Amino acid sequence: MIQGGAGTSSNMNANEVIANLALETLGKAKGDYAVLHPNEHVNLGQSTNDVYPSALKIALIFMLRRLDVAIAELEQSFAGRAEAFAGIIKMGRTQLQDAVPMTLGQEFATYAAMMAAERRALKALEEELTVLNLGGTAIGTGITAHPRLGDLTTTHLAAITSLPLTLAADRIAATQDTGVFVSVSGALKRLAVKLSKISNDLRLLSSGPRAGLGDFDLPARQAGSSIMPGKVNPVIPEVVNQVCFEVIGADMAITMASEAGQLQLNAFEPVMFASIERSIRHLEGAMQTLARNCVNGITADASALKATVEHSIGIVTALTPYIGYVRATEVALKAHQSGLGVVEIVLDEKLMDKETLEAALASSLVLGKAA
Amino acid sequence: MIQGGAGTSSNMNANEVIANLALETLGKAKGDYAVLHPNEHVNLGQSTNDVYPSALKIALIFMLRRLDVAIAELEQSFAGRAEAFAGIIKMGRTQLQDAVPMTLGQEFATYAAMMAAERRALKALEEELTVLNLGGTAIGTGITAHPRLGDLTTTHLAAITSLPLTLAADRIAATQDTGVFVSVSGALKRLAVKLSKISNDLRLLSSGPRAGLGDFDLPARQAGSSIMPGKVNPVIPEVVNQVCFEVIGADMAITMASEAGQLQLNAFEPVMFASIERSIRHLEGAMQTLARNCVNGITADASALKATVEHSIGIVTALTPYIGYVRATEVALKAHQSGLGVVEIVLDEKLMDKETLEAALASSLVLGKAA
Amino acid sequence: MIQGGAGTSSNMNANEVIANLALETLGKAKGDYAVLHPNEHVNLGQSTNDVYPSALKIALIFMLRRLDVAIAELEQSFAGRAEAFAGIIKMGRTQLQDAVPMTLGQEFATYAAMMAAERRALKALEEELTVLNLGGTAIGTGITAHPRLGDLTTTHLAAITSLPLTLAADRIAATQDTGVFVSVSGALKRLAVKLSKISNDLRLLSSGPRAGLGDFDLPARQAGSSIMPGKVNPVIPEVVNQVCFEVIGADMAITMASEAGQLQLNAFEPVMFASIERSIRHLEGAMQTLARNCVNGITADASALKATVEHSIGIVTALTPYIGYVRATEVALKAHQSGLGVVEIVLDEKLMDKETLEAALASSLVLGKAA
Amino acid sequence: MIQGGAGTSSNMNANEVIANLALETLGKAKGDYAVLHPNEHVNLGQSTNDVYPSALKIALIFMLRRLDVAIAELEQSFAGRAEAFAGIIKMGRTQLQDAVPMTLGQEFATYAAMMAAERRALKALEEELTVLNLGGTAIGTGITAHPRLGDLTTTHLAAITSLPLTLAADRIAATQDTGVFVSVSGALKRLAVKLSKISNDLRLLSSGPRAGLGDFDLPARQAGSSIMPGKVNPVIPEVVNQVCFEVIGADMAITMASEAGQLQLNAFEPVMFASIERSIRHLEGAMQTLARNCVNGITADASALKATVEHSIGIVTALTPYIGYVRATEVALKAHQSGLGVVEIVLDEKLMDKETLEAALASSLVLGKAA
Repeated sequence: MIQGGAGTSSNMNANEVIANLALETLGKAKGDYAVLHPNEHVNLGQSTNDVYPSALKIALIFMLRRLDVAIAELEQSFAGRAEAFAGIIKMGRTQLQDAVPMTLGQEFATYAAMMAAERRALKALEEELTVLNLGGTAIGTGITAHPRLGDLTTTHLAAITSLPLTLAADRIAATQDTGVFVSVSGALKRLAVKLSKISNDLRLLSSGPRAGLGDFDLPARQAGSSIMPGKVNPVIPEVVNQVCFEVIGADMAITMASEAGQLQLNAFEPVMFASIERSIRHLEGAMQTLARNCVNGITADASALKATVEHSIGIVTALTPYIGYVRATEVALKAHQSGLGVVEIVLDEKLMDKETLEAALASSLVLGKAA
Repeated sequence: MIQGGAGTSSNMNANEVIANLALETLGKAKGDYAVLHPNEHVNLGQSTNDVYPSALKIALIFMLRRLDVAIAELEQSFAGRAEAFAGIIKMGRTQLQDAVPMTLGQEFATYAAMMAAERRALKALEEELTVLNLGGTAIGTGITAHPRLGDLTTTHLAAITSLPLTLAADRIAATQDTGVFVSVSGALKRLAVKLSKISNDLRLLSSGPRAGLGDFDLPARQAGSSIMPGKVNPVIPEVVNQVCFEVIGADMAITMASEAGQLQLNAFEPVMFASIERSIRHLEGAMQTLARNCVNGITADASALKATVEHSIGIVTALTPYIGYVRATEVALKAHQSGLGVVEIVLDEKLMDKETLEAALASSLVLGKAA
Repeated sequence: MIQGGAGTSSNMNANEVIANLALETLGKAKGDYAVLHPNEHVNLGQSTNDVYPSALKIALIFMLRRLDVAIAELEQSFAGRAEAFAGIIKMGRTQLQDAVPMTLGQEFATYAAMMAAERRALKALEEELTVLNLGGTAIGTGITAHPRLGDLTTTHLAAITSLPLTLAADRIAATQDTGVFVSVSGALKRLAVKLSKISNDLRLLSSGPRAGLGDFDLPARQAGSSIMPGKVNPVIPEVVNQVCFEVIGADMAITMASEAGQLQLNAFEPVMFASIERSIRHLEGAMQTLARNCVNGITADASALKATVEHSIGIVTALTPYIGYVRATEVALKAHQSGLGVVEIVLDEKLMDKETLEAALASSLVLGKAA
Repeated sequence: MIQGGAGTSSNMNANEVIANLALETLGKAKGDYAVLHPNEHVNLGQSTNDVYPSALKIALIFMLRRLDVAIAELEQSFAGRAEAFAGIIKMGRTQLQDAVPMTLGQEFATYAAMMAAERRALKALEEELTVLNLGGTAIGTGITAHPRLGDLTTTHLAAITSLPLTLAADRIAATQDTGVFVSVSGALKRLAVKLSKISNDLRLLSSGPRAGLGDFDLPARQAGSSIMPGKVNPVIPEVVNQVCFEVIGADMAITMASEAGQLQLNAFEPVMFASIERSIRHLEGAMQTLARNCVNGITADASALKATVEHSIGIVTALTPYIGYVRATEVALKAHQSGLGVVEIVLDEKLMDKETLEAALASSLVLGKAA
């Protein structure tokens, strides 16, 4: 797929195939180009420089729609876990330090929300992809093409594809401008950034089994080690991470290819498309396996997580409206140094009565659920 | 600006400044925190994790608007050249090879169109930037904050800033999600890709003075060489290229920072903002100097460019509707090998009569102008 | 520092400063260029294209030596912790899952070894940086320069700088080739990759205080949160991470600048140097603060770590030479499901006698220390 | 090739294949693991974490040697053109502006020199690749492995491969450190940067045929356009550029994968190797086609190039030793404004006598050849 000639080889090949299919339909011998010629007739009013990028854009719309299905499946997968874990209290963490309580359901609802956001971002790209430069021929000026060709072919293509295709207002600009490929790649990169972040979290939160965070367990998928018996590794998120790194790298290739366009054409569209195609394909597979072979099977131990919250220092934050930031800091420090619990210290030092304290802690968790 | 602590230092400093300004207004001594405390009072119902990113987003909206002014100035600068050069015929080039004729005005109108497209792309980002996570406090659950605090502060901020600010539907997701910074950086990168491409073109088209393309002259801005007398270099586009490389590099830093976020917070927002701020500032300066010190002063020699078109082989494309692709290829080859002109060969070989030939060439140029 | 003109402005400025300093020494008025002219005399036999990159290379050698001091300090800092923690047993982890025992000293000795490796890698770059293209003038052909000028100035510079400077064998190639800057930036990127990995580890291993890995504590450097009392964040490693992302991004800018060089010169050396200079400066500061404000103050609880090892499933690996991989897998699984200890199960099921078991576990740790 | 589990699947598969091959040799049935077990026996004293990266390193050495053959062929191809064009004078250009004369042979000799430099840089990586971590097992501590296993297997492997393989001094560091892959990728990136620069030059210098630089012609390889008859495009350098963009992008993926390593292992080695493997394979093909289908067939018109030099303004630089920089600047300006030749103006204004002038010009060219 990586070819010199800005796609001319692909277009020439397509023209030949079309010519021969047409000759067949006409009852003529294949290769009888005196009757119907790939360049003289099939390519009439066309140039690689208008049909090739137009074909790429249409293909991308359909590929992105297929990708949307995969993101939607993963979104649903996360939403399923969010629902299943809605009642499980755990410690939220910022900067890898214990922060304040939240539910495990909120953890996964966030991932579902992120996927929904990415779906919207990718969907928003469709509009720019529907703008074609057909009829512009070599450099967008439309040399040799019938003046109505661009409009007519766009209209017919819109009918065939059921896509709201339109003609670029400025076909000279449209012929040399590969900004839409940069945007598509940038959106794929943004999706990859989020998927990688989520995979990092999944691996981190399932770390253990005994010397890790252990907030939940990923389903075991294969023997994790050729030497360490019983070891189970987060192999599915790991493969997702790697695909994401590849997609982010591909974005750099596409960025350079777009920047390297010169004058009336960008000769490097082939590598842009090849890279985007691979990124979409790999992301699709990665998200499918993440949903089916990992997220859907995640399990958690509610009572262990609850104990962690109760044992935490972070719950002192819920008491600041009652005892203030400065006093609360002293309690936190004492808890850290002594190993005692926050509740124990507060009651012991008579900073709050038991009833108010319990109400404060309970309301902070309710609030958490409601937010 | 690059700081650990996810912006806590900045927020703490701001709280102290606000506390002391308020104490001053109250007629109290600065530092009299018993009356008004930076953490207990100013930060009441706040967390770095909601106010810091909210402040960054509001700042970015205003910075992007300032950037828009700079892009608009450059767009106008290109449009000015497009108008001035509307009547100048020149050779268009694809893959650095002579292609078909166009006007020099179209060359610059394309750049103006590209800038207009970038303005729209950047403007479209504003909406996502107006969504704040105020009242979410530490991890978005709103712990310690009054339930109405998020809505009220957002409403007041909207009034103060005259921006259509809203509250995120899911503040837990909003607190850890830095996707909007990736998108802003990606849009700046796309702008940089186009500016770099245009700068490459400007340098290429003004190459010479005698052994280059020489389609136009950039205004001389400084002695180009400490050793080569009279040399004039394209220093302004060169500095634009370099800023663009820097912006593209910054996008990679931002991508990595966003990917590195963990669990309920991304601790690396400071480097994201520092990088975006520098990119915007440098792009703004680069576009201003490009418009004022380079593009506005570009001049071209219409008759020399016209002669190049007439002498070109590429005009044979305009004859394919009359003599066909195969015959035209033979003419082109003969012209290339003999050094003769296309017109000369076509007439000599009686492939077209003079009248039709001239009409064909003229119409191809008219079409070019109209497209 | 980012300038068009390939450094001509810097060279011209330097020539003027030198001319006026020389005029002063001669007892003449500043600006009396009839006597001594910046271009005619100071720049005699010089071109920006030879003196500018030569000056950059010499500057880089000294900057890299300063950087080496900072890496060495950090290496020593890690080595200090390695020594202090040599006797502390802890669980090693692969893929965030508990693996097999190691010492905390080995954890830090690894970081020291990595820093030593980076020092060697950076030192190896000095040789390529000592090769200058002086006397090559405009494009390396030496036009206008005295044939011996390159050799003589290189020899004098070597004496002044005490550096083993030499003249490039092919000055035409040397004038346009910016590969050495790509290599320097690549080496800085590799250093950044390792520092970021180490910072990630430091933040991960000090996560907690109660719902994290908690292998050790970083020294507290500032109040970690404006809302969460007593929270201590890993602010120093966080700032190091961010500097590393910036350095990796800068490498991309340098890569693009180098790729964009055309024909006999690369006009984008200024942004390469500006980026490398910033990377070195920021890395230097980041490593200094990491050593002084973080690593040197790290503390660990030996008995808690030892308990984690004894309680781990991973120690079953040490028993595979005795009971085999398949049987050991069964033990691991049973431990995971029952919550029992490996030792308990092995003894209970009479898979090994107590003496052999204890010897096996002890020897695996001894081996660990020796490796 | 992109897999989770840090290569465990590959290692497990290899163990099974080896077990069955061994069973076959023993005259046993395949799958008779009671006799010879993939994990218990084949993997004895091994871990994926030592054999997988060791295998990758050995593979890389052989792949880099194959790549060296391809670079050497391209180096020879450039050297061939350098020899063929040694006597052809042309204008050198800096910043795309006419600079001073050089030979076309020097143009290609530079490319040959660059390839030689890249070969040395890649060769220098072999040493780091020969350092293995065999016998380190899970995390480098050597747990379960016979103490002499590492040394013995390394010695045997060295004999089998004829490579100077050695054992890492610190196998714990060696097991988690993927710096060597970053270095290999960085060196491939540097090669790609140079190849892309050279491809840019080849396309630029062969631009035309009539409105371009036209310093030489690339051999025509296919019809350049489906619409523009006779157009010949630089398809071979274009495909090289695209491969280079891909390689540079891959370097970013590898950088992120290396940075993402955690604690005692980097789980992302598979994507590093998959990316490097593709980069090497594509670079190899790109360089072969560049040498065979492009560079070897380049032709130039010596007299046309000579005329360009004689007509140039840049030759005035050769006269600065005689008439000074300031006077020469005036001549250059006059030439630019009037269209006259430098020689004509200098003689007309009696700035030099004809004999001295011709000697000055001739010597500058001789100097050029000698440099």
